[in-house]
Amino acid sequence: MSAIVTLTTDFGTCDPYVGALKGALLAVVRQLHLLDLSHDIPPQDVLAGAFVLRHAAFEFPADTVHLAVVDPGVGGARRALAVDAGGYRWVAPDNGLLSCALAFPGARAFEITHPELRRESLSATFHGRDLFAPAAARLAAGFPVESVGPRVDDAVLLAATQAVVQGACLVGSIIHADHFGNLISCISGNDLDSFGDRARLRVVAGDVTVHGIVRTYTDVDAGEPAALIGSGNLLELVLREGSAAARFGLQRGDRITVERS
Amino acid sequence: MSAIVTLTTDFGTCDPYVGALKGALLAVVRQLHLLDLSHDIPPQDVLAGAFVLRHAAFEFPADTVHLAVVDPGVGGARRALAVDAGGYRWVAPDNGLLSCALAFPGARAFEITHPELRRESLSATFHGRDLFAPAAARLAAGFPVESVGPRVDDAVLLAATQAVVQGACLVGSIIHADHFGNLISCISGNDLDSFGDRARLRVVAGDVTVHGIVRTYTDVDAGEPAALIGSGNLLELVLREGSAAARFGLQRGDRITVERS
Amino acid sequence: MSAIVTLTTDFGTCDPYVGALKGALLAVVRQLHLLDLSHDIPPQDVLAGAFVLRHAAFEFPADTVHLAVVDPGVGGARRALAVDAGGYRWVAPDNGLLSCALAFPGARAFEITHPELRRESLSATFHGRDLFAPAAARLAAGFPVESVGPRVDDAVLLAATQAVVQGACLVGSIIHADHFGNLISCISGNDLDSFGDRARLRVVAGDVTVHGIVRTYTDVDAGEPAALIGSGNLLELVLREGSAAARFGLQRGDRITVERS
Repeated sequence: MSAIVTLTTDFGTCDPYVGALKGALLAVVRQLHLLDLSHDIPPQDVLAGAFVLRHAAFEFPADTVHLAVVDPGVGGARRALAVDAGGYRWVAPDNGLLSCALAFPGARAFEITHPELRRESLSATFHGRDLFAPAAARLAAGFPVESVGPRVDDAVLLAATQAVVQGACLVGSIIHADHFGNLISCISGNDLDSFGDRARLRVVAGDVTVHGIVRTYTDVDAGEPAALIGSGNLLELVLREGSAAARFGLQRGDRITVERS
Repeated sequence: MSAIVTLTTDFGTCDPYVGALKGALLAVVRQLHLLDLSHDIPPQDVLAGAFVLRHAAFEFPADTVHLAVVDPGVGGARRALAVDAGGYRWVAPDNGLLSCALAFPGARAFEITHPELRRESLSATFHGRDLFAPAAARLAAGFPVESVGPRVDDAVLLAATQAVVQGACLVGSIIHADHFGNLISCISGNDLDSFGDRARLRVVAGDVTVHGIVRTYTDVDAGEPAALIGSGNLLELVLREGSAAARFGLQRGDRITVERS
Repeated sequence: MSAIVTLTTDFGTCDPYVGALKGALLAVVRQLHLLDLSHDIPPQDVLAGAFVLRHAAFEFPADTVHLAVVDPGVGGARRALAVDAGGYRWVAPDNGLLSCALAFPGARAFEITHPELRRESLSATFHGRDLFAPAAARLAAGFPVESVGPRVDDAVLLAATQAVVQGACLVGSIIHADHFGNLISCISGNDLDSFGDRARLRVVAGDVTVHGIVRTYTDVDAGEPAALIGSGNLLELVLREGSAAARFGLQRGDRITVERS
């Protein structure tokens, strides 16, 4: 039974980099089941890569190895990490990409320094191929995560974006605009549960105000905006059969508030 | 030997959705051979998804499971379908995506209602992850299609776009503009066979008229338009080494006619 | 153990073509490990396809079959090639795509003419599905490359783009602008080694001049240009955390020179 290794990168799909990464994995361990999560993380957008991992990685069988390379600091001082968390193993540069793994109870992080886990001649610009892929392949084949190098207790964590109550408002921000134009906020279903009756809440972002939180897209008419709790248990501002991001000119980082009517 | 499951979605490649779908499949059945057909179906474009399935699905070995999720009606009243057709099994929302399977002689459709084929807590917005993926994985592992739920005899079929003879004209429409800018029509090679001598036919669409139907791109000079029967046995208007769609400003739905010279 | 077959095409990801190619492979040999290198080679851009293969193909285990389809001449007189080189087998149209394989010492090329390696009814516009995929699948399953058809000694080779010394200058050109906007030149690390002290060299392209060649991106400040030797051992003009291609308005074919300070 082949070990599963998922790939999440900002390499795009027009260049040799994705192929080189896959080849480098299979050259070390011939039998791996490689699965593309995304190679279209915007260039060097660690935040977007971390978002994809957070909402996709835990769907996989618990012996999966997640390899993620969004690596603006390649060749510099940033460490290479292997993490054991939630049953999964994770390999990535130490820049916040693995925040969801590091936040998992019992997570253990290690710096990858073992010389057998990298190529002898390490390029200065492509550690995905020369270090992260060989390390991920070896971990998938059973190399013990605690043997990759020294324990790391200060791995980089992205600042958690969390909703806060300010007077009569629950204030958060948009943390991801997806491919459909859905605007996903940091406000969770749990935040709302403790705030008020969903049907009587008002969601405000930019120039748009939506009354009430619905269950799904088809609860409003085509072309109408709605607020709903999406599949990642986060409040989303959406437009049925359209793009809320395009219609309302909103993007990641913009403020979104929930108010009691 | 791993079962083959193909994936066709409008999820795009920047978000967690494709990864979540793959994880949800493998979490149910650890050994599956997953193959991406396309995740770049335009958002909620059921017609484009159906076109991709129609021209790719039947190339696969006959025990393949085809999972397709283009699902503007998610969370609403639309049914979840499993279809047995042409030897293949198919899983998709009941919105016309599976028209090519449903039109296959002997096709049988069922509504997926069996509680073991979905997650206990079903989200309102991501049935790909919570229902279609688990069902497809179970079918790939041998779950009998007739046990998924009640037989469906009124599954949604896309209106067939067919050429009609109007006087001295064969009148059809463009049903797909591909990535190369080739304009693919609903007029088939068979339609032409019964209409006239290919070399003496005239193809008209928008402002462009092409005389004669050639065999392949290289039968005309670079930059020249041509009409030919493409790999799906449909009449295409093309531009050698260029984009007919861009040059002629034509798109899906536009009229195309064939006339005898 | 499944044979590995990689796929490199200009098919894009919105159409049925990638799926049809994968299906055609698996219909011939049910157990193959298919790996996408890229389906986003720009339409009919043989040069870009050759670049991807050159820098990714040799990372794979040496029994890999590389299938590449960028085929503007489909249906015309161009030959279908199978090449044995570097331990790998390669399948592609004879248009220069396989230049990196053909240049490998001991490479042997053959025209694919054996009737068992293609479909009985060969379309005029999709040899990827009807000829290259079946042939690649059979080679992966052990069909001897020398049995596919007659030996070819005049396979098409892309003109090698090489740096030349002109007086006090090393003159080359940009051969690829990658997804990050890095401008990759034909000037290799070896060219530089024999030219002068890297720290004292000046790189000039369009309106931009960079002093010295650094090791990696983080050797300059964010937003600053730099010249470095990339992961393929080629001189690149880059912009830290930005796109050099966009900033400097440079593209493939543009001149780049290295001068001694």
